[in-house]
Amino acid sequence: MNFETKFDEFRKIIENRIKEATQIFEPIDLYEPYNYFMAEGGKRIRPALTMMACGAAGGAPESALDCGVALEIMHNFTLVHDDIMDKSDFRRNRPTVHKKWNESIAILTGDAMIGFAYRLIPNHKRYFEIIQTFTNGLIEVCEGQVYDMQFNTSQNVKIDDYIKMIGKKTSALLETCSVIGGLVADADDKIISGLRNYAKYLGLAFQIQDDLLDMIADEKVFGKKVGLDIQEGKKTYLVILANERAEKPEHRELLDKYYNSNGLSAEYVPKFNEMFVELGIFDEAKSKIAEYFRFAEEALKELADNDCKKMLLWLLDKLNNRNY
Amino acid sequence: MNFETKFDEFRKIIENRIKEATQIFEPIDLYEPYNYFMAEGGKRIRPALTMMACGAAGGAPESALDCGVALEIMHNFTLVHDDIMDKSDFRRNRPTVHKKWNESIAILTGDAMIGFAYRLIPNHKRYFEIIQTFTNGLIEVCEGQVYDMQFNTSQNVKIDDYIKMIGKKTSALLETCSVIGGLVADADDKIISGLRNYAKYLGLAFQIQDDLLDMIADEKVFGKKVGLDIQEGKKTYLVILANERAEKPEHRELLDKYYNSNGLSAEYVPKFNEMFVELGIFDEAKSKIAEYFRFAEEALKELADNDCKKMLLWLLDKLNNRNY
Repeated sequence: MNFETKFDEFRKIIENRIKEATQIFEPIDLYEPYNYFMAEGGKRIRPALTMMACGAAGGAPESALDCGVALEIMHNFTLVHDDIMDKSDFRRNRPTVHKKWNESIAILTGDAMIGFAYRLIPNHKRYFEIIQTFTNGLIEVCEGQVYDMQFNTSQNVKIDDYIKMIGKKTSALLETCSVIGGLVADADDKIISGLRNYAKYLGLAFQIQDDLLDMIADEKVFGKKVGLDIQEGKKTYLVILANERAEKPEHRELLDKYYNSNGLSAEYVPKFNEMFVELGIFDEAKSKIAEYFRFAEEALKELADNDCKKMLLWLLDKLNNRNY
Repeated sequence: MNFETKFDEFRKIIENRIKEATQIFEPIDLYEPYNYFMAEGGKRIRPALTMMACGAAGGAPESALDCGVALEIMHNFTLVHDDIMDKSDFRRNRPTVHKKWNESIAILTGDAMIGFAYRLIPNHKRYFEIIQTFTNGLIEVCEGQVYDMQFNTSQNVKIDDYIKMIGKKTSALLETCSVIGGLVADADDKIISGLRNYAKYLGLAFQIQDDLLDMIADEKVFGKKVGLDIQEGKKTYLVILANERAEKPEHRELLDKYYNSNGLSAEYVPKFNEMFVELGIFDEAKSKIAEYFRFAEEALKELADNDCKKMLLWLLDKLNNRNY
């Protein structure tokens, strides 16, 4: 089986369902921004994960399509609201909703999208659990966003705080996808717990990898300059770890300067690079990523072998080897 | 039975349940504003209506308590977000969430409140219908808010548009309360449809009454100056109707001035009063309110007589006779 082809097939089904779900009704000032934002929606990882998890748990992947699309809508609602909070003018090379319409419309569109998401979830013998799982995902994403905002102003973020934050901000919704896929397949607790851990560690690995790639990626493949996180003053895995480890005066000075001015210009990026090498931060990040990918793989070992389980492992491998 | 006392009893139970539901967890920047906003929550009409509707349909009112509190949280989420959009600094004599914290926190608190609301809805044999009804309420409130915003910039709002707008902005959530009360009582379609219409017409009557009282209330009882809507340039039932009826040049001139400058100062209020009297607008509004209250009453005629049904009728009467 060619997993890339199968994955593209899933995405085609997902795109069609999204088109159906985003038709424009009155008032158009609500439905147009919803349609606009959903139409160019990136890789559709979340609905694909929902379908694969359902298949891996022994269900028909298509039976989880509507739940997957609901989760994609939920994910996109968070982006519409994040863009307001971050004052971002562009996403996916197009004006954001609050920029193209206005902030009130963007708030209301996001709010209504939560409703559109819930409305799509079809009845099911485990409907109550599906709704509870979905709702916890919504709450955790909000909690994660608040933690992330607190990071911006805090001088004292620890690695454990960081892991908790990305656990809520990134992993929680992936876990929600994976668990709901399992619930749609009516899987038992052991299988569902495996699917949850798969998504959890996938999300954690992916996020730390993002931080690492920002520093060590090949700029030609990566498609953007390295070191942007440093210039934006982000409290990445690398920076937080360095801040915990650094003792040498020049490292402390660099980090204090970084924390006090909320980021440093491009010429400081090589200095960070040197510091990260000297403190073994890159190696530590790499081994943490490898560990999380391994945990994700191990989480699936209770699941019977089938094409969708293989696809989940293929996805893991694909992400593990990414350099962009 | 003393309905006032019974109503207060319901409200006491509701307040206690709200206290339980709004405990503060981490991150406190999310749970504190939630707790803060819910703690001074007005009259708790929505959860009380949910319980009364459940009782009127033959269920135990307390069995609808959690759904009622979920609906109260939903209602309050809309207020947190409305305050951002309206740039209101105060509500219920206290700083609004975006003022006391900041706008990002207010957006996220509102978002999370939707989740807190869904999470409170307990499992039930008609859980799917309850969630669908709840979700439609959420979507309709957002639609109503968009219509309301469009009114601010439109020169050409008709009475039918106004009724559609308040139907979504005010009635929809009351209908949701009433219908969910009926669903918790496992009532049949006829009863549920009666409960829905009761709440629908109650909401419409209440909203038009609000517009009317702003012009004709006794200032001492009303507790605020009359004519504030005129100064804010609101497209009230009275103004829209006058705009449809007015032909005399001085009326047209007054209305055109009003529409073009989005409101007029206090000295114009008596002119509006005269115009409304001359065009019979007050009488028309009064008879429309009376008609809607009658529709609300008639909607309950299929329901068997019991204390909660009597309480719903008492509430109707209480609102019908309000002068504040």
